[in-house]
Amino acid sequence: MKAEIISVGTEILLGQITDTNASYLASKLPELGIDLLWVTQVGDNLGRLRDCLERAWNRSELVLTTGGLGPTEDDLTREGIAEMMEEELRVDPELERGLREFFSVRSFPMPESNIKQATIIPSAKAIPNPRGTAPGWWVERGGKLLIAIPGPPSEMQRMWEKEVSGRLRERLGHEIILSRTIKTLLMAESAVDEMVSPFLSSTNPTLAVYAKPDGIHLRLTAKAGSKEEAEEMIARREDDMGSILGESTWGHDDETLESVVGTLLVEKGLTLATMESCTGGLLANTITDVPGSSNYFKGGLVAYTNEAKISYGVDAMLIATHGAVSPEVAGDMAEVARLRLGADIGVGITGVAGPTPVEDKPIGTAHIAIDDGREKRLVFGIYPPLRHEVKRRATYHALFELRRTLLSTR
Amino acid sequence: MKAEIISVGTEILLGQITDTNASYLASKLPELGIDLLWVTQVGDNLGRLRDCLERAWNRSELVLTTGGLGPTEDDLTREGIAEMMEEELRVDPELERGLREFFSVRSFPMPESNIKQATIIPSAKAIPNPRGTAPGWWVERGGKLLIAIPGPPSEMQRMWEKEVSGRLRERLGHEIILSRTIKTLLMAESAVDEMVSPFLSSTNPTLAVYAKPDGIHLRLTAKAGSKEEAEEMIARREDDMGSILGESTWGHDDETLESVVGTLLVEKGLTLATMESCTGGLLANTITDVPGSSNYFKGGLVAYTNEAKISYGVDAMLIATHGAVSPEVAGDMAEVARLRLGADIGVGITGVAGPTPVEDKPIGTAHIAIDDGREKRLVFGIYPPLRHEVKRRATYHALFELRRTLLSTR
Repeated sequence: MKAEIISVGTEILLGQITDTNASYLASKLPELGIDLLWVTQVGDNLGRLRDCLERAWNRSELVLTTGGLGPTEDDLTREGIAEMMEEELRVDPELERGLREFFSVRSFPMPESNIKQATIIPSAKAIPNPRGTAPGWWVERGGKLLIAIPGPPSEMQRMWEKEVSGRLRERLGHEIILSRTIKTLLMAESAVDEMVSPFLSSTNPTLAVYAKPDGIHLRLTAKAGSKEEAEEMIARREDDMGSILGESTWGHDDETLESVVGTLLVEKGLTLATMESCTGGLLANTITDVPGSSNYFKGGLVAYTNEAKISYGVDAMLIATHGAVSPEVAGDMAEVARLRLGADIGVGITGVAGPTPVEDKPIGTAHIAIDDGREKRLVFGIYPPLRHEVKRRATYHALFELRRTLLSTR
Repeated sequence: MKAEIISVGTEILLGQITDTNASYLASKLPELGIDLLWVTQVGDNLGRLRDCLERAWNRSELVLTTGGLGPTEDDLTREGIAEMMEEELRVDPELERGLREFFSVRSFPMPESNIKQATIIPSAKAIPNPRGTAPGWWVERGGKLLIAIPGPPSEMQRMWEKEVSGRLRERLGHEIILSRTIKTLLMAESAVDEMVSPFLSSTNPTLAVYAKPDGIHLRLTAKAGSKEEAEEMIARREDDMGSILGESTWGHDDETLESVVGTLLVEKGLTLATMESCTGGLLANTITDVPGSSNYFKGGLVAYTNEAKISYGVDAMLIATHGAVSPEVAGDMAEVARLRLGADIGVGITGVAGPTPVEDKPIGTAHIAIDDGREKRLVFGIYPPLRHEVKRRATYHALFELRRTLLSTR
């Protein structure tokens, strides 16, 4: 199936946002065996949008659009599709009811201009969007398919995952395509690439390597006549790679480091507390991104100064002797957090996020400690010397080590 | 001048990389008064690439391509342009000399396939690329212009900055285009749209409304014969909108709420401390995203349980009487953070991030307090009942109120 993506929005053409929707969808289509041949970005202009839609509808079997489904005058995707298809836009009573309810639940009057989000053409079916006011459109005509999805990434991704990909898979017939993503930390992309290179040329299952914020991901995709067969192909290939990847693997598919850690804490009935300096709250913030984290996360202390560390209970002598950026202080931070907040495990992070070095330690240095009351696991990291990178990498590194500690805890 | 970008590379269509080249170039073109009307991404396929180039050459005055200039068989941009222009590719002796030198300087034998990077067509002039082996192409014919730029972002950006943008500016003459973004919080997109609707149809300056994570942004863009004139047009239109937007405006252009707050804290010589529950560290994390925040941010306390709040010093009686999610407790959290960490100003946030309601208060409720030692500013927010939204919105809301407090502080 030949597919095409059209991303709608003048803000993309002005360079105000990068079109990550197109790359998200592009990365998902191969799993369904769909070939993406073109991506076009076009502004909020009815004539040009209609032209793009027409060309796409003529040359492709599947057209995916994102954006332009908002409530303002600039949002023209509905109008563009209606013109291209020569169908009439009408307010759908059920969509209108849903829209008015969305606003009334929030005790917010609905601006009358929003009513355009309840319009639809006869060939289209609305796709639910609980995250926003713009439903998507699923349009089938003459054996071709056009799917219009809202532009805000959280709405787009949910709609793809929960509403669109399953229906597409069904429509495409019986070949089963299964994917499994293996997530690793602490290895460089080029190193992983070299290690798994014997498998990169395989066509079924395929293997692709991606560098992501939380480490290197390896994605296996198998095509087969049945789910069981595809699963077995993937399992075998994963075994092949097991010894190569070793202990750097921390999770699969939708798992995140914070969800993996959360699940282990719940399983073992343990609680957690943190004290962080260079990550400035990102560790606590990441841990609390997991729904239900209030069941195991007692709290976190952000100590951006030595005084703050000392006021929380870190030993001032340790700071004076070893410096604030030292394994000794990281260890004490972990212990103090644990005791102070009555948790089973404490995590401490101290390092240099930049822009200036601290105590002659270079930007990008961090010491991480995990204290479970019996022993302290101490690790050291050097990351690219950019503020955001240091915060992010040190946070993931700490969660990775916390996972290791939890795995060895009974 | 109507422009179009073509990004070449199958890796974009597979979602393996995001096309940041297009958004980089898109963000640069408005400064030159160039209107970007289309961006197309196409794979390493000669037929489809030539089609895209042909369409672009017919409908646009300036075509920018990135990618496909490498030395491998997959790199087809040169071939595509030559076919489209019906001109012959020949090895240019001077380019060949340069290429051989590039390799010999690095004491690296030149793979013979690299010679294709020294080929060019008669209408094209080579653009130097000291960062790599692929020169760019500057092609002029019939009053139209095509510029082919290598794909690696560091080569692309250098070529744009040092070689292309200046020549383009010279060729275009003197029209100046200036933009200014006004950033607001606490208003819905559709409401802002309605309020500023009289200005939305203006063609110079233009006005566009965008919903962003940190609120609603309004972007004014003016074209004029001189910088001063364009600046005045924007200033006048901004004044027109001032009374409409009122106190909801918090910043401009590249400013973020955290940078605005940071600048005010530095100006006034004040320090900050935080205690947060439902935002789980996101407030501290956002504050510490600003380089130099260690100069004013003393530290933050994340209190995910009532015991943690009480252990930090929050009054247990207040929690028992009013509930943990109450203005009284938010106020006490702000005060305790301020006193505990020896800061001038304390911020407290308590609320319900979900997935379950707390004390019968619905998901998405938050109380925020700013305590400057003289008085407490208390505000209340209701946000969309999704964990991430609650964390994000409550954090920005708190920073917005902190800005207000700082502005009224001498």
